Amino acid sequence: MHELEILKSIYAAKSTHSQVTIAPGDDMGEVRVGNQRVLCSVDQLVIGRHVTPRTNPSLIGRKAIARCFSDIAAMCAVPVGSLFTACVPTTTDNAWCQAVFAGANEVAQKWGGPIFGGDIASSEGPAIFTVTAIATPGSRTIKRTGAEDGDYICVTGELGNSIAGHHISFTPRIAEAQELLKVLGDNLHSMIDISDGLGQDASHLATQELQLVIDTTLLPLRKGATVDNAISDGEDYELLFTSSTKPPEELATVIGRVESGTNKVITLDGSIIANCGWNHQ
Amino acid sequence: MHELEILKSIYAAKSTHSQVTIAPGDDMGEVRVGNQRVLCSVDQLVIGRHVTPRTNPSLIGRKAIARCFSDIAAMCAVPVGSLFTACVPTTTDNAWCQAVFAGANEVAQKWGGPIFGGDIASSEGPAIFTVTAIATPGSRTIKRTGAEDGDYICVTGELGNSIAGHHISFTPRIAEAQELLKVLGDNLHSMIDISDGLGQDASHLATQELQLVIDTTLLPLRKGATVDNAISDGEDYELLFTSSTKPPEELATVIGRVESGTNKVITLDGSIIANCGWNHQ
Repeated sequence: MHELEILKSIYAAKSTHSQVTIAPGDDMGEVRVGNQRVLCSVDQLVIGRHVTPRTNPSLIGRKAIARCFSDIAAMCAVPVGSLFTACVPTTTDNAWCQAVFAGANEVAQKWGGPIFGGDIASSEGPAIFTVTAIATPGSRTIKRTGAEDGDYICVTGELGNSIAGHHISFTPRIAEAQELLKVLGDNLHSMIDISDGLGQDASHLATQELQLVIDTTLLPLRKGATVDNAISDGEDYELLFTSSTKPPEELATVIGRVESGTNKVITLDGSIIANCGWNHQ
Repeated sequence: MHELEILKSIYAAKSTHSQVTIAPGDDMGEVRVGNQRVLCSVDQLVIGRHVTPRTNPSLIGRKAIARCFSDIAAMCAVPVGSLFTACVPTTTDNAWCQAVFAGANEVAQKWGGPIFGGDIASSEGPAIFTVTAIATPGSRTIKRTGAEDGDYICVTGELGNSIAGHHISFTPRIAEAQELLKVLGDNLHSMIDISDGLGQDASHLATQELQLVIDTTLLPLRKGATVDNAISDGEDYELLFTSSTKPPEELATVIGRVESGTNKVITLDGSIIANCGWNHQ
């Protein structure tokens, strides 16, 4: 079952509650609590799927938090706190678990979203760590929807070959998102973080009338990455956004333009790449 | 690894962030978001452990939400929203998954905490559904700490033999908690929900100087339950609380008193029952 299906299924049941201000389908959901808007997201890290069993446990904890906090960056939001759960086999070594928690705790604190709750359960399956992130809107929440005709398509950092190491060592682009929001202001129209691959994630910024046209010669390639890697690898955890003005070069690279069209995401030669990516569920 | 160990491990790393207003170790954690306090908790439901694979999928979804929302009741808080995640084998039947989500969605809406986000992952282990609950404080947040010498120990509903059906059909005591808070006011001192068994959960209301003395002849037994069942079965999801005034009989039953002592939880004949319960991780 694909993630979009569960989200659609949740969508389908119309909420009768006006406190939901951003419904499922964006990088984070948002609810109104009193007079405050609160953003939340949740991400699961499965050992053997998102990391290997031999990965340094401290880095496993770090990655569990980092993946979830990348969603905070993608909304231009600010971390407030996080919850950390473990579902582990009964045979799991306590010291290993403690190292995972310590790694998670360290970055959660450092990035401003301290762990303030959790749960532990046991199962016979692989260890799974689930992180819930709580955040508060920055000066403005940037959603996936909002791209406008003629927008520049931009990306932070580099793309592709994340598996060589970036996927375990990246820092969520929370500071960069705040900087972009400050510099671009109202011209910053839409944003997502690239977790499933540029092609696939870019498709979420497309609309019924607007498509994203990517100039693949402009893609900032990570060391060892080909253009195909940059389009399809996933786990870049970089910010992909559209803006009617160019961002400063030191913050992001322009990789294309938003145009009228219904192909979602295409390259200059017309190849449709909207489905290129990694199903990392 | 016991749940308390993970919580202790999280405690151990001192938070440098003042926005955490209730640290791990209570039924929910609390953070300050802007000028608003937000309560959060997370609970995992493992197929084969908390329900059988043959349980009606709609009731599985219902129970996943209900368990987590029982934590909201235990803080006398009010639901705002929830996140729902699934980690399921790739062979999982889509219709089964949809039925789980539908069951979860229905009660989440009904109880005022609509699902506004989620995540799906796959693993080779049993299906696991994780719920994050977001809540707002009622007129006052009631914590586990706060019992006073001489307090009445009280419980809502009935205890024991939950496995016969209650564990899958219970409604979290959110309305009752609000009513108790209204009726008892400042005399309501401490509260927890009974998930692991009366003995074990009561021990969390004890302090270094105060113990809970239970008169087992007063325990409200669920149909088919013995006193031992009432003390140890768990999954009652009833509210256990201490108050310096008696609650109305239609809301709760008095089952003992808080006294000076260091035995945590004992019966009138002096048996220590602080460890009686079910480790349902």
